[in-house]
Amino acid sequence: MDVNWGEVAEWVGVAVFALTGALVAARKGMDPFGFALLATVTGIGGGSMRDVLLGQPVFWIADPTDLVICAAVGIFTYVAGTRVVGLMAAVRPRQLLLWADALGLGIFAVTGAQKAFWFGAHPITAVVLGTLTASFGGIIRDILAGEVPLVLRKEIYVTAAFLGSATFSVCVVMGLPYSVAGPAGFVAGFGLRALAILRDWSLPPFTARTG
Amino acid sequence: MDVNWGEVAEWVGVAVFALTGALVAARKGMDPFGFALLATVTGIGGGSMRDVLLGQPVFWIADPTDLVICAAVGIFTYVAGTRVVGLMAAVRPRQLLLWADALGLGIFAVTGAQKAFWFGAHPITAVVLGTLTASFGGIIRDILAGEVPLVLRKEIYVTAAFLGSATFSVCVVMGLPYSVAGPAGFVAGFGLRALAILRDWSLPPFTARTG
Amino acid sequence: MDVNWGEVAEWVGVAVFALTGALVAARKGMDPFGFALLATVTGIGGGSMRDVLLGQPVFWIADPTDLVICAAVGIFTYVAGTRVVGLMAAVRPRQLLLWADALGLGIFAVTGAQKAFWFGAHPITAVVLGTLTASFGGIIRDILAGEVPLVLRKEIYVTAAFLGSATFSVCVVMGLPYSVAGPAGFVAGFGLRALAILRDWSLPPFTARTG
Repeated sequence: MDVNWGEVAEWVGVAVFALTGALVAARKGMDPFGFALLATVTGIGGGSMRDVLLGQPVFWIADPTDLVICAAVGIFTYVAGTRVVGLMAAVRPRQLLLWADALGLGIFAVTGAQKAFWFGAHPITAVVLGTLTASFGGIIRDILAGEVPLVLRKEIYVTAAFLGSATFSVCVVMGLPYSVAGPAGFVAGFGLRALAILRDWSLPPFTARTG
Repeated sequence: MDVNWGEVAEWVGVAVFALTGALVAARKGMDPFGFALLATVTGIGGGSMRDVLLGQPVFWIADPTDLVICAAVGIFTYVAGTRVVGLMAAVRPRQLLLWADALGLGIFAVTGAQKAFWFGAHPITAVVLGTLTASFGGIIRDILAGEVPLVLRKEIYVTAAFLGSATFSVCVVMGLPYSVAGPAGFVAGFGLRALAILRDWSLPPFTARTG
Repeated sequence: MDVNWGEVAEWVGVAVFALTGALVAARKGMDPFGFALLATVTGIGGGSMRDVLLGQPVFWIADPTDLVICAAVGIFTYVAGTRVVGLMAAVRPRQLLLWADALGLGIFAVTGAQKAFWFGAHPITAVVLGTLTASFGGIIRDILAGEVPLVLRKEIYVTAAFLGSATFSVCVVMGLPYSVAGPAGFVAGFGLRALAILRDWSLPPFTARTG
């Protein structure tokens, strides 16, 4: 049951991140393969980074399901956006991108930390790996698209990934089962990110006081 | 015999990708170490990415031959371009870069998939790893040189890597020997890329229909 | 004793690289989490790259000490720079960044090569891994901050990392103990980089002679 839940969550996270990659490809006017590539790199980027840092073969070597999901999301977005009259105007791609990204962030903050625990990492390391897993897909998407990775400057983003990952890890260290720790971490991470989007929250940026 | 062929092909692929790195270094007016570094990163980047994703030590840890090839190509290009009067004008560096890159793409699309099969990857994973191996060297070269990785926007590029890798993988799955599958994959990948260069082929870019 | 020395050196290297990340975050006006993230990525980036290329779990999976150091350096820089009146003006952040970076470069050129030897790499590979370890933190810092990685164009930088790494590796191959080879490599790498900063040394950039 628990493993099943985690796998479904991971698929959803991969799919929504892939969607954000495809939406950036649309903004950049890429061709169908650009859509598939950017969707795939964004969808599997965070989890691949996590596995590589853990010294493991990445999760899609043995089971290509996630690769197929990503490519399908990319191609579908290209076809739907090109063929379906008015679709791209109707869905407001910028809003869709923000919310899909927030959903993926909430999921990967948890699954990233979870896999780190699985491989015996220290809880602090688990929090950092969860934060990286949730952030890295979006960073590599922006770098490949030739944009400054906004993740580092904008309203609360990495902070939300960190909160989700830390909430999950604290629950695990306290001995709570994954069926409680997982949703708690997701709600914390996605919730903070959602509030940041809705209310335009941000942390105070750095300004040197030289007076 | 077969292993031998694969090793020679890999060396050629590494050398021609290293040459493209050195040519970008020339365009950017770098110093000799910049030439060597960009040549090395471009030459071994794709294969290193492949090995890292497979959870293996990269191929040049145990045997530094490819490192020496890359550094030599970088230094040689710097010296030849600086000292040999008229050489850089004669060879038309932009054309040389395009064709060397195409050659490397055709080779790595095959050797990337081949190594994935060797480590027991699923055929779909093998196609994706071959595509990544063939594309990643050029992507990291462009990012390090501070350029938008054109691989994502230009005429058919990733598509050619994909076709080469897929052709090779289909041949392998069909039980054909590497001595047939390898050349078939190379011809498919390099051929499509060559046509794209010569005829300026591209896939239709995305344009949302909002009417 | 020897291991102890290496560990302390690694901590110092991580901390000074983390400081350069925090200083770039200050220049970019990031928020506290941006400081912590950029400090962490810069501090552990080079060593993580080294471990990944060696096919090992990265060094901070089992022991999160370096993560804590990096995050603390990032947050401290944010708080000190914001609260302590005149601090950022007094320390001249650009100079501090250059010299902290030089110190980290000298240390990681040695520890990168040392770990490569530890895992049985060829001496040439050890030199390359040391050079990469010393350079990569700064490269990823600049890419994440949306700047062209100046490492490739500026006055002697990669060359200094290479000299430090090569000096150390030659000493090791000659059978000298780490207590000699380590300081020798550090002095060579840091010394050349210091001279490059003080005297604005550079290697001749590429200019094609077409006449």
